[in-house]
Amino acid sequence: MKDLKEIYENRRAVNFFDKSKKIEDKTLEDIINLAILAPSAFNLQPWKIIAVKSEDAKKKLCPLAFNQPKILEAPVTLIITADKNGFLPDKKAWSTFEAQAGKESTEGAKQFAHSLYGTSEEKKIKFAESNAGLLGMSIMYAAQYYGVDSHPINGIDFDGIRKEFSLDEDTNVVMLITLGYFDKSKQLYPRLKRYQYSEIVTEV
Amino acid sequence: MKDLKEIYENRRAVNFFDKSKKIEDKTLEDIINLAILAPSAFNLQPWKIIAVKSEDAKKKLCPLAFNQPKILEAPVTLIITADKNGFLPDKKAWSTFEAQAGKESTEGAKQFAHSLYGTSEEKKIKFAESNAGLLGMSIMYAAQYYGVDSHPINGIDFDGIRKEFSLDEDTNVVMLITLGYFDKSKQLYPRLKRYQYSEIVTEV
Repeated sequence: MKDLKEIYENRRAVNFFDKSKKIEDKTLEDIINLAILAPSAFNLQPWKIIAVKSEDAKKKLCPLAFNQPKILEAPVTLIITADKNGFLPDKKAWSTFEAQAGKESTEGAKQFAHSLYGTSEEKKIKFAESNAGLLGMSIMYAAQYYGVDSHPINGIDFDGIRKEFSLDEDTNVVMLITLGYFDKSKQLYPRLKRYQYSEIVTEV
Repeated sequence: MKDLKEIYENRRAVNFFDKSKKIEDKTLEDIINLAILAPSAFNLQPWKIIAVKSEDAKKKLCPLAFNQPKILEAPVTLIITADKNGFLPDKKAWSTFEAQAGKESTEGAKQFAHSLYGTSEEKKIKFAESNAGLLGMSIMYAAQYYGVDSHPINGIDFDGIRKEFSLDEDTNVVMLITLGYFDKSKQLYPRLKRYQYSEIVTEV
């Protein structure tokens, strides 16, 4: 039992990971299998994850993240990717929608999805990135639930990572999420200021 | 005290809202002020929210969401928007970063952010949509924490909403999140199948 509000308040982008602490395979699985309860458009789940765990893969990834040392120090870094064409009618994931909505409604939904996302490269990117953002957030809070600290990394060579890890042209590298345990010999900065309700919400 | 795992498991996209139940102003504020603990690139928080509460605004929004009745039935629908240029050096939000990193590092970060996101329209959209995705997910779980059900809506006329609500060209409408209380006279479908760890994760 862990309180959601406390998890929100305690989750911080952790820059320093304890190199001596691994993440158990079971823990990583638990994190992902909880996080994937996130919603996505038409339940298409257009995401795939590369879990960078080996020393070799970390060494390939690190220079593509501008040599941020946490890539080498943390036990796992997740490469969160999304399929820009994940809404196309032939995608396997439509079967999860069809299982409930039936064949006819699913045909309609496929056409609708195409009208929403299929008309330009910008719309495809929108589809991929917004859905992967939902998953990314879901992963970071889920990690904290299992006692694992995280750090989202956007300062990366998106296209370089795609090529280095042999991902196809339709796959967008969205962000990295480094996972591990905070190195308690280090100190975290105070949390950066967030804009509050009155500063970001307009009521109409 | 509410367990995060239970909230993940209990959060469902709720199609039917109890029309007789309003959301207290304080509750909506609490939801947003918890959700904004989400991280964002360089803490730029490139998001703004329009909270559609009045009957007039709901009637404007509903046809732009293909007349989904829940827009009219739910007490509040949030229009989640993001600034495609939210990383530009003159943005006010850099001050939250600078307060900690100092002036010199912030100048470097501004150039870095521009190299990441400023080189194409696609990269700008990536910046806006992925960060807003983090917020969207953070809102839905936070809502559940405060006992409020939600429904993310992507089947909308993104550009039509931008125009109808007088948002500028740089602003992307990312998604709607309808908030309210489930109409218990209705029945929810079982949750759609999610792909599990072994189906979406590749370890390297």
